[in-house]
Amino acid sequence: MAKALTSRSEDYSQWYNDLVIKADLAENSAVRGCMVIKPYGYSIWEKVVAALDKMFKDTGHSNAYFPLFIPKSFFSKEASHVEGFAKECAVVTHYRLKNDPNGKGVIVDPEAKLEEELIIRPTSETIIWNTYKNWIQSYRDLPILVNQWANVVRWEMRTRLFLRTAEFLWQEGHTAHATAEEAIEETNKMINVYADFAENFMAIPVIIGTKTESERFAGAIDTLCIEALMQDGKALQCGTSHFLGQNFAKAFDVKFATKEGTLDHVWATSWGVSTRLMGAIVMAHSDDNGLIIPPKLASLQVVIIPIYKSETEFAQVSEKAIQIKKSLEAKNISVKFDNRDTHKPGWKFAEYELKGIPVRIAIGPKDLANNTVEIARRDTLEKKLYPVEHVENIVEQLLVDIQANLFNKALNFRKANTIKVDNYDEFKKILEEKGGFLSAHWDGTTETEQKIKDETKATIRCIPLDQVKEDGICIYSGKPSKGRVLFAKAY
Amino acid sequence: MAKALTSRSEDYSQWYNDLVIKADLAENSAVRGCMVIKPYGYSIWEKVVAALDKMFKDTGHSNAYFPLFIPKSFFSKEASHVEGFAKECAVVTHYRLKNDPNGKGVIVDPEAKLEEELIIRPTSETIIWNTYKNWIQSYRDLPILVNQWANVVRWEMRTRLFLRTAEFLWQEGHTAHATAEEAIEETNKMINVYADFAENFMAIPVIIGTKTESERFAGAIDTLCIEALMQDGKALQCGTSHFLGQNFAKAFDVKFATKEGTLDHVWATSWGVSTRLMGAIVMAHSDDNGLIIPPKLASLQVVIIPIYKSETEFAQVSEKAIQIKKSLEAKNISVKFDNRDTHKPGWKFAEYELKGIPVRIAIGPKDLANNTVEIARRDTLEKKLYPVEHVENIVEQLLVDIQANLFNKALNFRKANTIKVDNYDEFKKILEEKGGFLSAHWDGTTETEQKIKDETKATIRCIPLDQVKEDGICIYSGKPSKGRVLFAKAY
Repeated sequence: MAKALTSRSEDYSQWYNDLVIKADLAENSAVRGCMVIKPYGYSIWEKVVAALDKMFKDTGHSNAYFPLFIPKSFFSKEASHVEGFAKECAVVTHYRLKNDPNGKGVIVDPEAKLEEELIIRPTSETIIWNTYKNWIQSYRDLPILVNQWANVVRWEMRTRLFLRTAEFLWQEGHTAHATAEEAIEETNKMINVYADFAENFMAIPVIIGTKTESERFAGAIDTLCIEALMQDGKALQCGTSHFLGQNFAKAFDVKFATKEGTLDHVWATSWGVSTRLMGAIVMAHSDDNGLIIPPKLASLQVVIIPIYKSETEFAQVSEKAIQIKKSLEAKNISVKFDNRDTHKPGWKFAEYELKGIPVRIAIGPKDLANNTVEIARRDTLEKKLYPVEHVENIVEQLLVDIQANLFNKALNFRKANTIKVDNYDEFKKILEEKGGFLSAHWDGTTETEQKIKDETKATIRCIPLDQVKEDGICIYSGKPSKGRVLFAKAY
Repeated sequence: MAKALTSRSEDYSQWYNDLVIKADLAENSAVRGCMVIKPYGYSIWEKVVAALDKMFKDTGHSNAYFPLFIPKSFFSKEASHVEGFAKECAVVTHYRLKNDPNGKGVIVDPEAKLEEELIIRPTSETIIWNTYKNWIQSYRDLPILVNQWANVVRWEMRTRLFLRTAEFLWQEGHTAHATAEEAIEETNKMINVYADFAENFMAIPVIIGTKTESERFAGAIDTLCIEALMQDGKALQCGTSHFLGQNFAKAFDVKFATKEGTLDHVWATSWGVSTRLMGAIVMAHSDDNGLIIPPKLASLQVVIIPIYKSETEFAQVSEKAIQIKKSLEAKNISVKFDNRDTHKPGWKFAEYELKGIPVRIAIGPKDLANNTVEIARRDTLEKKLYPVEHVENIVEQLLVDIQANLFNKALNFRKANTIKVDNYDEFKKILEEKGGFLSAHWDGTTETEQKIKDETKATIRCIPLDQVKEDGICIYSGKPSKGRVLFAKAY
């Protein structure tokens, strides 16, 4: 484990890149902008998927699967959607290769050109609403509450592992409703599901809010979001839920017979989170020693490391370790007994610290003699001796404590870094010196928002749902404002 | 439910197509050859995925994720692989669209041409072995036991829902080993995992065997397969496991330092099953009334239907139904109480028969008076009255019985349709009249295999692993043979 990590204070951005690679979460692939999610990274993503999938099902949704390809013409059907999505995308133009007549590998067969190009989905509203057209005739067919787990592609020019990649994994919910009210209720319900997941599983406090017009999803009437603050004072959008109105129903001509016997266009929502969440998990909690994974998302929660010199000691320690392992597993705690003789305990300690395993148990001959074990918690790095009897109860409680501690620490950090600002110079100063969420008055115009962005790189992350209505003056234009919005530099 | 199903005897192929659509499993999309997997179909696929994923993890595998795109040049690196896979595939040539200067939607931006075309993965050996090159230096890095759940694309000209689609979902295991023996053991282990899954979850008996050279995976030394027999006497390949030798390690220059200090190329396997299994589940068991889903893969195992005339009766029946539902759920049985008042019981009976729900419970005022319920099993369509007390135990046992009955029925069908044939005229006659597996002697040459295929459309499905060594005469050429192989027409 001679892999030194760049420290956060030295270079936060490099620290993140180092950490993702050295902790074996992901790596860049041979294809520009596309990542390989390595087994350890994927095991955490599987925990994310399992927890969210259960939440979606508990709120009445079913999964389905729609095609990877979208005919090019579909994008032109919803005017603002095409502006937002159809530009930077992967385009399939041919369906066959053939041997190079010059004998050098294979070339694209010019005879096999598609009549209409296919776009690799950057998001699936268009193909899904084209499908829903055939599923919906009457109000009896509504609501449709469907989610899809899928890969999508957006041809990003600057990519970073998990945070911005050309291909990424995500889920996209697409629901259809008989009324605007019901669709708005769904939009709200799902952003709350995301907030619940972020806070209770990822241990990351989030602000729920509405996006301004310029940050809205292309094709939405309204976009709700959850915004989190990373340790470097930059914001990370963790999930969005869109009220799409009747925009896609109109674009794809999806009408239904109402209870009253009239014909109306269907109301829609869509909502999604992606492998970007992995970036948030890494950045919100980890330290200069490596990852810190919240216990509820840790694919491995406890590691047991034997300390021994002789074969006899190893046998005795192993016996106890296996007992402990079983008692933890009986409580549905995931445990690994790392009995490899190819690495020393110190190496193992560092390795599991790097990987962010929440709890480490070390057990040696002294512990056997004294009926103790040494338990180290990853979040605080605190080590303590505990009686070995009922160690499973101690560990169970410790996992709960760590989960809570991580959340509280992140919440305190956010509180300390959410600042009311009433003056543009101060705004720029704070933004430059420490970042964070800046709560400031804004005149409500896209023009002012754009100017602030151009001058400071800060964007309006959201208009918080719990915004206090208060009269104020826009920090930039001096025009009147009815309440504060949250600015930050963002990922 | 005025949806009449074509009967199997009338047109088996049409029956299948009707059933997949009418039971809401899947449908064709707007994109040629690509399907939409509808929520009901997907819920069964989720059961397949969960069961297999557990089996993979129990045998030591981890999941990971590799890019959707493969650089074109990668395909040329393994000579036989390119012949098999690089031809009929989706090719990405551009990464941007732009507004049509003529104002008609969007067009491909000719300025955004990729330097090297990207192929949508038809299978991932090449991109994965290019990645493994960086993961493997020494024998200590081996074995790598990785699986990926992903979508893949093969540009098939003739497509059928689930059985052959341009895009399909699958899993692909890719393992790396220090020795040929270990890789061969893995190849065998995984085909046995597939056979276990087919027989114990899908309730479909399978023959494990080796493919002949001409049916082998492109790039493999040896391909093992499981072959099942459908009700129309045609075979369906349900899964394959390939021993790849050092072919991909050589193509991508993946070497490791052995324990002895020498350098050697790594040994490989790959293995996969796909949404094709959904086609097998549909075809193996279902009847002219609709689907029959094996209980272990049924996303809904029991439906309770209330019989009532008055509101009062409905309230009384509902109370009992909810009690029964809870008692079944306590046994981890999935249950729906269909209390919709928009449909009559008869309609519901037919609907759940069509959907293949294993057990149906009907409960009405008479049942309340007599402390009974009517239980119907989907496989035999048998209806019987049972005492309501401990109905959960009766249903639990019934689900086990149905699972076993489906397997036995399929096994008996296969036994009755596996015929030893020693004469080419008889071979052709049986193949034409009833199909099935024809166990016949073959001289071992690709030439004879091809001629039989050209003349009869039958292919060698496999050389069974439990093949009896016996001297015989090839049914086609009259040349000597050392054992029988299985011929069939196949999907």
